[in-house]
Amino acid sequence: MTDWSNHFSQHARRAIPSAIRSLSEFPRATDSIPFGPGEPDASLFPVALMREALDAILTDETSARSALQYGPSEGDPMLRRLVAEHMNKRGVACAPDNILLTNGAQQALNLASEVFVDPDDTVLVQVPTYPGALQVFLAHGARLADVTKADAATRPALIYAMANFQNPTGISLSVEQRRELVTLAHRLDTVLVEDDPYEVLRFDGDALPSLLALDTETRSIEEAHTLYLGTFSKSVAPGLRVGWAAGPRVLIEKMGLLKQTEDLQPNSLAQAGLVRLLEHGLEPFAARVQAAYRIRRDIMAEALRQHFGNRGAWRVPQGGFFFWLTLPEHIDTAKLLEHAAKLGVTYVPGAAFTPDRSGANTLRLSFSAAAPERIAEGVRRLARAFDEYDQNG
Amino acid sequence: MTDWSNHFSQHARRAIPSAIRSLSEFPRATDSIPFGPGEPDASLFPVALMREALDAILTDETSARSALQYGPSEGDPMLRRLVAEHMNKRGVACAPDNILLTNGAQQALNLASEVFVDPDDTVLVQVPTYPGALQVFLAHGARLADVTKADAATRPALIYAMANFQNPTGISLSVEQRRELVTLAHRLDTVLVEDDPYEVLRFDGDALPSLLALDTETRSIEEAHTLYLGTFSKSVAPGLRVGWAAGPRVLIEKMGLLKQTEDLQPNSLAQAGLVRLLEHGLEPFAARVQAAYRIRRDIMAEALRQHFGNRGAWRVPQGGFFFWLTLPEHIDTAKLLEHAAKLGVTYVPGAAFTPDRSGANTLRLSFSAAAPERIAEGVRRLARAFDEYDQNG
Repeated sequence: MTDWSNHFSQHARRAIPSAIRSLSEFPRATDSIPFGPGEPDASLFPVALMREALDAILTDETSARSALQYGPSEGDPMLRRLVAEHMNKRGVACAPDNILLTNGAQQALNLASEVFVDPDDTVLVQVPTYPGALQVFLAHGARLADVTKADAATRPALIYAMANFQNPTGISLSVEQRRELVTLAHRLDTVLVEDDPYEVLRFDGDALPSLLALDTETRSIEEAHTLYLGTFSKSVAPGLRVGWAAGPRVLIEKMGLLKQTEDLQPNSLAQAGLVRLLEHGLEPFAARVQAAYRIRRDIMAEALRQHFGNRGAWRVPQGGFFFWLTLPEHIDTAKLLEHAAKLGVTYVPGAAFTPDRSGANTLRLSFSAAAPERIAEGVRRLARAFDEYDQNG
Repeated sequence: MTDWSNHFSQHARRAIPSAIRSLSEFPRATDSIPFGPGEPDASLFPVALMREALDAILTDETSARSALQYGPSEGDPMLRRLVAEHMNKRGVACAPDNILLTNGAQQALNLASEVFVDPDDTVLVQVPTYPGALQVFLAHGARLADVTKADAATRPALIYAMANFQNPTGISLSVEQRRELVTLAHRLDTVLVEDDPYEVLRFDGDALPSLLALDTETRSIEEAHTLYLGTFSKSVAPGLRVGWAAGPRVLIEKMGLLKQTEDLQPNSLAQAGLVRLLEHGLEPFAARVQAAYRIRRDIMAEALRQHFGNRGAWRVPQGGFFFWLTLPEHIDTAKLLEHAAKLGVTYVPGAAFTPDRSGANTLRLSFSAAAPERIAEGVRRLARAFDEYDQNG
């Protein structure tokens, strides 16, 4: 086998595998209960409606041809309009020109990083944070720093944050904390990338304004420093690979140019399917997934209370997919995972979510992928693994 | 509007718009005949078969869920196997592990460039060549040089070539020229990226071995220096955005890691649709488009002979989508396009295809998008535009 490693670019050398995706090779019991992956439950996908939508599109010759042909780099004009209307309802005055459609929010995040981050630039992140974002920033050669310790002396190339039901902590920022982030971005003269995949998954409490909504309260979107990332992966289905960025037109155009260079355009068929599916808005889909995941959140909250007792600390999230557990200092959750996997439950060790792999005594539990009737059993197994590990090391 | 340009990364500053896509804003007659875009004719898409395939997938609960869920970064295992079998039939011994599925061949090209090209590296290209490749290499900061003038003193980061019905010249390389390219890549210790989008569109003559097939005649694919890029955009439909790279596993894995970072994975639904559509192979689809485009090629060849006479020089391509015209030295085809557009025909000026914007007296005519019954009229209009321009300047 030829050794190519000496010929790899700096970018290729910096790229690292996902700390989460590599867990999929972990040995585990056959009836394992998956609290690891943050993927939606496929039984909630609107399969029948999607079938009808695609059938209608492919039955009409004109719509069929356009759903299978090349399209604009920035995405289907009708879907851009629908997304702009969605953002309008969320308090963001914007036009279709302020929307770029992408292959999921991940591509929007990568494009934003590509537009702003040069090697050795600083990127401010919440700690812990989404590993897929760490992968992106590290591939671009960024130095990562904790946004709560922002040093006014260095202008960061980018600030990355989730305001709603953050991955992995499940925590939402207060309105005041949100305002502080927006103010920080303006003060440091940088872009604030707001990743909001779980927005539709609020179970309790009133919706809070997005960072972009706050940023545009007193100024036009063209003057905003926030770039909002959204996705249909949680409300409809991730396999469609459709997400979006919303922000100042000059940034949307630059990201669109890079998207054109990198893969020409988003998938036409999936976009056409979404346009038809969302004829009556996103709300019915949001309501459906909210109700289903709320039940799971409640089951996991109760199971943790019952089986985990005072072994660790956690907060019940108001939405999203995740509980974040902090265990006693002497517990290494990477080692605990070996016990847990043998007992038939998996999760993601907390070190996967930190730039310096700290947080060895933390872990993320996802309630999105496990069947509701299995969640309590999964937590029971985890508590048993904890006891085994704590007693025998 | 905030001015972000000072904050853009080096990468973002280097990115340039497509010389072809920007032509779409050119003023033109309303009944204009499009010899510009290299997009397939949508009336040839297998719409009914795709509707049946998607309907079957979304009727079965198991296949529906998986077609809408997250999947492997490298692509659907069944489609990787089908593509590997396709490559086997074309004389390339390879396994599914040697295949990466991407958002069209464009993403595969971008990933390959990302893996190998650092700023100021040299990339060797055919001149003229596909503008979308120039966009990619320039965004990565490459210095472009003509592969026929390869300088053995500098190791290029990458060689980019089309062996079949090249875009824009329509020329195919002889087996001897192909062997020379493969030898050059090994001699210069670099990767040869073989872009082969038009492979299924051979109208005359016998198929010639791909660069990768030649490279693997005497060595295993793991020792090859060729990375092959293929696509379903010409044989099935481009809106699906499914293409692939085939090559040594170590390169496929590195590109797959970057793909994971950049957009997680290919579109699940389109991949599932293709798996079902291609149950009986790609051949029926290839035969259909071959027959349809051969007719157009013949019409354009005859119309050029009849209406264009000795105004310029061209060769009749054995396949693909394009005629390449060389006009007398004093003709500027960018200026000629203004006349042509007013008379109701468009094309792409040749300078769009060269790194230094040379070739002002050349142009590309595509016969893929214009209706067959309009092709002769389009060439007649072009000849008239030529006469007008030549007489009045």
